[in-house]
Amino acid sequence: MQAVNFQTVALIGKYGDPNVKESVAHLVEMLTAEGVTVLVEHATAGSLPTKARYEASSLAAIGNRADLAIVVGGDGTLIGAGRNLCEYEIPLVGVNLGRLGFLTETSLTNIEGSLEDLLAGAYQVEERMMLRVRVQRQAGDLAVERAFNDVVIHRGNIARMVEMETYVDGLFVFSQRSDGLIVASPTGSTAYALSAGGPIVHPSMRAFTLVPVCPHTLTNRPLIVPGHSHIEVVLANNPGEVQLTMDGQTNFALQDGDRIHIQRDEHNVHLLSDPRRSYFDVLREKFSWGERN
Amino acid sequence: MQAVNFQTVALIGKYGDPNVKESVAHLVEMLTAEGVTVLVEHATAGSLPTKARYEASSLAAIGNRADLAIVVGGDGTLIGAGRNLCEYEIPLVGVNLGRLGFLTETSLTNIEGSLEDLLAGAYQVEERMMLRVRVQRQAGDLAVERAFNDVVIHRGNIARMVEMETYVDGLFVFSQRSDGLIVASPTGSTAYALSAGGPIVHPSMRAFTLVPVCPHTLTNRPLIVPGHSHIEVVLANNPGEVQLTMDGQTNFALQDGDRIHIQRDEHNVHLLSDPRRSYFDVLREKFSWGERN
Amino acid sequence: MQAVNFQTVALIGKYGDPNVKESVAHLVEMLTAEGVTVLVEHATAGSLPTKARYEASSLAAIGNRADLAIVVGGDGTLIGAGRNLCEYEIPLVGVNLGRLGFLTETSLTNIEGSLEDLLAGAYQVEERMMLRVRVQRQAGDLAVERAFNDVVIHRGNIARMVEMETYVDGLFVFSQRSDGLIVASPTGSTAYALSAGGPIVHPSMRAFTLVPVCPHTLTNRPLIVPGHSHIEVVLANNPGEVQLTMDGQTNFALQDGDRIHIQRDEHNVHLLSDPRRSYFDVLREKFSWGERN
Amino acid sequence: MQAVNFQTVALIGKYGDPNVKESVAHLVEMLTAEGVTVLVEHATAGSLPTKARYEASSLAAIGNRADLAIVVGGDGTLIGAGRNLCEYEIPLVGVNLGRLGFLTETSLTNIEGSLEDLLAGAYQVEERMMLRVRVQRQAGDLAVERAFNDVVIHRGNIARMVEMETYVDGLFVFSQRSDGLIVASPTGSTAYALSAGGPIVHPSMRAFTLVPVCPHTLTNRPLIVPGHSHIEVVLANNPGEVQLTMDGQTNFALQDGDRIHIQRDEHNVHLLSDPRRSYFDVLREKFSWGERN
Repeated sequence: MQAVNFQTVALIGKYGDPNVKESVAHLVEMLTAEGVTVLVEHATAGSLPTKARYEASSLAAIGNRADLAIVVGGDGTLIGAGRNLCEYEIPLVGVNLGRLGFLTETSLTNIEGSLEDLLAGAYQVEERMMLRVRVQRQAGDLAVERAFNDVVIHRGNIARMVEMETYVDGLFVFSQRSDGLIVASPTGSTAYALSAGGPIVHPSMRAFTLVPVCPHTLTNRPLIVPGHSHIEVVLANNPGEVQLTMDGQTNFALQDGDRIHIQRDEHNVHLLSDPRRSYFDVLREKFSWGERN
Repeated sequence: MQAVNFQTVALIGKYGDPNVKESVAHLVEMLTAEGVTVLVEHATAGSLPTKARYEASSLAAIGNRADLAIVVGGDGTLIGAGRNLCEYEIPLVGVNLGRLGFLTETSLTNIEGSLEDLLAGAYQVEERMMLRVRVQRQAGDLAVERAFNDVVIHRGNIARMVEMETYVDGLFVFSQRSDGLIVASPTGSTAYALSAGGPIVHPSMRAFTLVPVCPHTLTNRPLIVPGHSHIEVVLANNPGEVQLTMDGQTNFALQDGDRIHIQRDEHNVHLLSDPRRSYFDVLREKFSWGERN
Repeated sequence: MQAVNFQTVALIGKYGDPNVKESVAHLVEMLTAEGVTVLVEHATAGSLPTKARYEASSLAAIGNRADLAIVVGGDGTLIGAGRNLCEYEIPLVGVNLGRLGFLTETSLTNIEGSLEDLLAGAYQVEERMMLRVRVQRQAGDLAVERAFNDVVIHRGNIARMVEMETYVDGLFVFSQRSDGLIVASPTGSTAYALSAGGPIVHPSMRAFTLVPVCPHTLTNRPLIVPGHSHIEVVLANNPGEVQLTMDGQTNFALQDGDRIHIQRDEHNVHLLSDPRRSYFDVLREKFSWGERN
Repeated sequence: MQAVNFQTVALIGKYGDPNVKESVAHLVEMLTAEGVTVLVEHATAGSLPTKARYEASSLAAIGNRADLAIVVGGDGTLIGAGRNLCEYEIPLVGVNLGRLGFLTETSLTNIEGSLEDLLAGAYQVEERMMLRVRVQRQAGDLAVERAFNDVVIHRGNIARMVEMETYVDGLFVFSQRSDGLIVASPTGSTAYALSAGGPIVHPSMRAFTLVPVCPHTLTNRPLIVPGHSHIEVVLANNPGEVQLTMDGQTNFALQDGDRIHIQRDEHNVHLLSDPRRSYFDVLREKFSWGERN
């Protein structure tokens, strides 16, 4: 039997999904059988039948106390957990509810079979970069947010295109009229950015992908810049409201003249992945790419 | 001197553009000098200095009385005039304000030089198909609208994708999650549909181009179906509001369960174009395509 | 029992495929049991064990005598049969060898179960347009060929791009430098043209899709023109050999200065398809598009 | 007057271009007037009227002796010079013949006006990564080549697609049938890779872009991997000849079973660029991107 590296393990389930309950309860049982202290995130704990064997905890408490967080749900759940927990730099592992995700690549059955390996630290740790976005309006900063996948500046309910100017490290890149601009991390390259025509960027890279959404100028193609870049987007000539969306999950209303600053966050997400499955194996299955003959 | 075919000519200017005034005033002068009766659309007339030589008219009056309408502005102005006047089937000619449009391909200088040709009927008439859209909700039809370029069903202010099912002539085509679906006429193929990845469709064709906007499934590619098709889009599983937009100009709020029916309109827009310039000449200039060596 | 509409049925198998033999032999047996006269294409017949119950026939004899041709293989086999038999205008039906094709959408098992329906004429006939290509060099015409999917003008073994000028109905469209130009029929829109970025065009349409392959100018997008168009491509400034390829199956070496004329052929392919499966059903399965919830 | 940092300057002209002669002769005059020793590449020297003021030199001699090479021509000329001179790590500066290039961004007039700055070392040095490709066949290595822009594995004169398997750091990525596969450096991202649908990658990055050309599987999208990756492509099931092309300039005939290894070269190209013009300024002009309002 392998030594247990992770003594305190947190469980975070997909919000409001009835199928999560059973998986989480099962994991509680298995983890306590291994002698591990189990924390369950408050909202997830609310759906469980009994609270005997675990402590219901806030995300902050999880961040401070847990050695590992197991996230049960789809990629969206893990993206949210990454955004909220990255500052604590605890490792995360994603468990899907039956459908392979880019980030939640392990099924409940698989993790059961390899729980000892996981707890012993046999999983590989991938450090994934995060985005940090700051909105500057007139006299000061309005908001600082993190994003794991992407920051999107896009028209809201209006039919008009958004106009914006983009700068990288203070250098003017272009003015653009479009439905929006996606600034994606490598992790986010297989999410919304891909639908908008962006490339797949290996998650070990430190880079931003700027993908215009339906740009008026056909030569406005996806652009990759280094992870140490300071990206600045300035809204100009937009009569109506423009939206800022992080990871497709949190929104912020922008105004004309706002300056949106995007840089790499100081923290990474520490993602654990099954050593028997590579990033390319996941891509190949998700995209039905050709297998070996 | 050529015989004048068009006895009553209407002038319609771009709404709210201060540069239109001078061009329209100049055209009034030139047309009256040719002995033509001139009608000026109400809003456009409001900006003119004197009303001595023309009659300020509603769009309906223009439709009923004019033999020809000269539209001064950009493509958006002509698209609006086409939508409003197509039922009267009077010919339209577009005059741009300095920047070549796909539809407003003639400059003020050019039209001055060829006004006699234009009035004598020497211009070529292109019949362009229009779209007709009907929204069906529960107990009845809610709205019937026309569009010249495109009908777009898209997410509004929400970050989520829109879910919809599409049928052609009653046959199920696909369920799709995306930012939206564009149904474009051939005229609209060089507008929003092009930005979203659609092809250029010759305007003499009778066809609909269905272009998904940032579809979640990468194989959801633009699809061309015949102009006699009945396209039906059904909204399903959308918690928030979904928008219907005609030509990027008029909006309608959709609800989950709505069925949107799109067919070819019974009327065409009759577009006059300069016989010395082909459709391909305009494309080549707008897209900086290669000229002959 | 339904009346048999097709008295003489031809069988054409995929060339050189060992799996075809058994399927064809089985179809011979079933068809003779229905009292039908069976012709088997020469090359296909060569692989069969016994020749007792059918006549080995040339494609010309099949064209002249058969009321129906059943083509066993993949889409390539049916494309070839369409090109060779379209002038006889006999109906074709495609039977796949286990893998759904766009054109060979029926499995052997399915056709067995519905052979009576097929012979009774219960299948729907789709008329698909064909391309006709003529190469003009200096003093005369060099070659006239047909294509069902596409005509491709492309660089051969050379690393350089091809330069060509394109005209539609005598009007200059563009000069272009690229890897090649695909002119596709609607049937061909789901073949090579799709890989090169073209749209899907409903097969009932009469239209050509011009798709540039890796064009140097990014705004050279796919272009759809009516089926009655006369497309002319002129090679200019190409030091090396340029290739003309029909349906990815037959080649012709072009020279600088050659003029390639492409029009719709006077004949259609008459394709029989199972009335229980629509064109969209096939697309949805091939492209893994979303099913109804 | 500024100190002269570059004492020996080489001139390399576009091969076979009659317009180069005058520009090079002019630069010889200006450089000698600055007291600099001038080397002119052999083929370029052959076209000059007099050889009094410079030494005709081989590329190797230039590499060994020159402190700076001025390359006069288009991007192709500079790409070739970069491939041949990178091992000597001397700085290169590109001068165009009237048409702005991505790499030859300076006109003769501009360089005249800033020659003192250039010679004084006021230009910025960009280190651009190079590719190194090795072909492994059965018993050994067949060829080792460098590329500045891209390595392309593509079908030659045959109509069929190429089949290949791709590995990154020994991990299987995909089997693919396509017209070819481009492996591009960041510098090459604005060349052939862009025509094939790849993104623009900032030249300071260390990354490979893998772009499939017309892939049969629609989800085979461009993929970016880190610059320290070992890329391996294995040819399988290709009956005919497959081509390997470096920078669109040099070719190598591949056979089925060949393994092509691509890594970053140990040398960089040292590119000098005008400090008054950024990389984005060049992109914006080449692609007609929107300027500031």
